[in-house]
Amino acid sequence: MGEFKHLVVAKFKDEVVVEDIIKGMQDLASEIDTVKSFEWGQDLESHEMLRQGFTHSFLMAFNTKEDYTTFLAHPKHVEFSATFSTVIEKVILLDFPTVLAKPIKPSSETAEPTAA
Amino acid sequence: MGEFKHLVVAKFKDEVVVEDIIKGMQDLASEIDTVKSFEWGQDLESHEMLRQGFTHSFLMAFNTKEDYTTFLAHPKHVEFSATFSTVIEKVILLDFPTVLAKPIKPSSETAEPTAA
Repeated sequence: MGEFKHLVVAKFKDEVVVEDIIKGMQDLASEIDTVKSFEWGQDLESHEMLRQGFTHSFLMAFNTKEDYTTFLAHPKHVEFSATFSTVIEKVILLDFPTVLAKPIKPSSETAEPTAA
Repeated sequence: MGEFKHLVVAKFKDEVVVEDIIKGMQDLASEIDTVKSFEWGQDLESHEMLRQGFTHSFLMAFNTKEDYTTFLAHPKHVEFSATFSTVIEKVILLDFPTVLAKPIKPSSETAEPTAA
């Protein structure tokens, strides 16, 4: 089975210092052990129409759905969520088991030859 | 530098056979070399309000932004996009260099001790 992922796509309110929010999210991911990995990105270039005004995506990975549930119920997450909800203009959250349809392959230079 | 990622969050039209679309996307990711990895998921459980009606997310990784640009311009991608645009009720696309804020760490059992 693949990982369980928590995806947040957000547009922040104009007056918000986004760096502070992201710092808080990084701390949260670091402090809660069940968060397996955390990555984020800011889209600065796509057409506004394509991104519907959303600017940031945040993606956390968990080994299992239970690990995600543990994260959700963690007091630090509950506290952060309350803050987060005040700084976003709009948000979409999706939680799902991932299907890894094209796993990262080793480069052709280093790949072992396939056994015949 | 991290990877460059292409995120698609979609809600499909009711009559669409989503499996066929996903199969097409998997083929696309397999056939175009610059796609480093491809994963997707379907959210079946979150509150409709939180996911705003969106059901699927698709995430492709590229080594560089140039690899992503190559993918975008590939005839197979152009063809697939034309089809894809007819089957979605709504969609959000975000493209961004990723910041890996919490990399996957080795388990504590196998981790090397940090040099003092």
